[in-house]
Amino acid sequence: MRIAIVGYGNIGKAALEAVIEAPDMELAGIVRRNVASVPEEISRYEVVDDITKLKDVDVALLCTPTRQVPQYARQMLSLGISTVDSFDIHTQIADLRAELMPLAKEHNAVSVISAGWDPGSDSVVRCLMEAIAPKGVTYTNFGPGRSMGHSVAARAVDGVEDALSMTIPLGTGIHRRMVYVQLADGADFKEVERRILADDYFCHDETHVIQVSSVAQLNDVGHGVNMVRKGVSGKTHNQRFEFNMSINNPSLTGQVMVACARAAAQLASGAYTMIEIPPVAYLPGSDDAELRTSLIRHIV
Amino acid sequence: MRIAIVGYGNIGKAALEAVIEAPDMELAGIVRRNVASVPEEISRYEVVDDITKLKDVDVALLCTPTRQVPQYARQMLSLGISTVDSFDIHTQIADLRAELMPLAKEHNAVSVISAGWDPGSDSVVRCLMEAIAPKGVTYTNFGPGRSMGHSVAARAVDGVEDALSMTIPLGTGIHRRMVYVQLADGADFKEVERRILADDYFCHDETHVIQVSSVAQLNDVGHGVNMVRKGVSGKTHNQRFEFNMSINNPSLTGQVMVACARAAAQLASGAYTMIEIPPVAYLPGSDDAELRTSLIRHIV
Repeated sequence: MRIAIVGYGNIGKAALEAVIEAPDMELAGIVRRNVASVPEEISRYEVVDDITKLKDVDVALLCTPTRQVPQYARQMLSLGISTVDSFDIHTQIADLRAELMPLAKEHNAVSVISAGWDPGSDSVVRCLMEAIAPKGVTYTNFGPGRSMGHSVAARAVDGVEDALSMTIPLGTGIHRRMVYVQLADGADFKEVERRILADDYFCHDETHVIQVSSVAQLNDVGHGVNMVRKGVSGKTHNQRFEFNMSINNPSLTGQVMVACARAAAQLASGAYTMIEIPPVAYLPGSDDAELRTSLIRHIV
Repeated sequence: MRIAIVGYGNIGKAALEAVIEAPDMELAGIVRRNVASVPEEISRYEVVDDITKLKDVDVALLCTPTRQVPQYARQMLSLGISTVDSFDIHTQIADLRAELMPLAKEHNAVSVISAGWDPGSDSVVRCLMEAIAPKGVTYTNFGPGRSMGHSVAARAVDGVEDALSMTIPLGTGIHRRMVYVQLADGADFKEVERRILADDYFCHDETHVIQVSSVAQLNDVGHGVNMVRKGVSGKTHNQRFEFNMSINNPSLTGQVMVACARAAAQLASGAYTMIEIPPVAYLPGSDDAELRTSLIRHIV
């Protein structure tokens, strides 16, 4: 299976590592805008500015900023290349799937969308918990870990040079925001704090703004989730379920995308989210009947 | 979707409750050997001794003892009726799937096997954890809850009138066995204890034998699991995952079987384990595109 990586930021780097470690994949190359200066660690690979310059690409991993995913997905699918992305704008997932579905079918390709950890692998666990306890409530508690969206929002505030917003889980889906700010020259902290607390991204949550001399010093890509469901199976109440992770964020995302690239090679043409894919398809050797069934055993 | 329940023990009772609660199912009837004396709570339903006496059955839930599952599955599939079972002899799952596959295809039916919680929903979580951290070890820790297999083994020991073996999780897949025994008239406890500790079911684990006056008094169908994986995503080590449940055992099993009956109606003919089924197929209304994709969102 020949894989192309489109975009070489945090996720692209992690996806590259996951492709290299996969026993059933090889790298077709990396697509990025800037091919004039290529980072040392990828100088031995094909690095091009257009995917048509790579040979025999089966699946393209779209590691671009999330807003650019739809345009790249359209381009790749039109070329008959399957795609996997980690598109994470929750309210637009249904629309993206509906848009890519006919395009994927027309070109006999597969598009797996929103294949990260949330949306993504968390969605699979939530779906399973709802299936086995249909009535009840699931709480998804994120963190501790940085929120890209909130960090960008804080950085956009007048007087902020750099900012990092950490998401702290308080349970029952409620989160605290710890916002670390590095002030622009001459900015007043109290004024910056007031603006952040009034921002629509922060005004609904418990938010603390803390001044630091260097936001770069706080950089840590660890993240986590705690999902809890209490529900009813049949007529029996108080069934309890919990899923926890403590993970390196881009590494997990890259690995999920690689697992979904493997599934893409086995699925009928069309657009899929992860809850629409048989989990065994994520594993190498998953066309081996003995392995498929032995995996169900708890000794594995 | 019309459902038949075959066998009316603990699992059959729980499956009946789950069918009644399902918005998209109706009960075709209950199949059991004894139709002469029918428990009060099912007197209003069709209770027959042969499934051919029920009308328009789409899916039969096989709630018989696990060793009788293969023969019932063969019978139902030959009639073109799809089946769901919670067959739990881990070492024979691959063979059962291979045996039922051609039969299901020939009669245009679906057989979902080993659809309980372990094997079953736990298998889905283990498969997903392995997909997103391919290198590493998963430990499955059961309990506290009774082990049917170990309880039966203890009951078969000379001098035992009744017995209950509780499984206590000690972590890293190691379990303690707490065996509660009610002695037969004239039996010697020290001798019974020696026999149990020497039995192949118990001699490999830490086992404690405790004499009680009534095993029936200890009856509790609660159970649980703690699954832990520490593994590698891409080249990043120390990725941590954990799944916990505290549940009523037959109620969860019945609900899982009902979810798989729903999936059976959507799958191509053949035999499946749960890791081969798209999770969204377990949910009612799962042919609704908007719902399918909205489920992936963490607000659900």
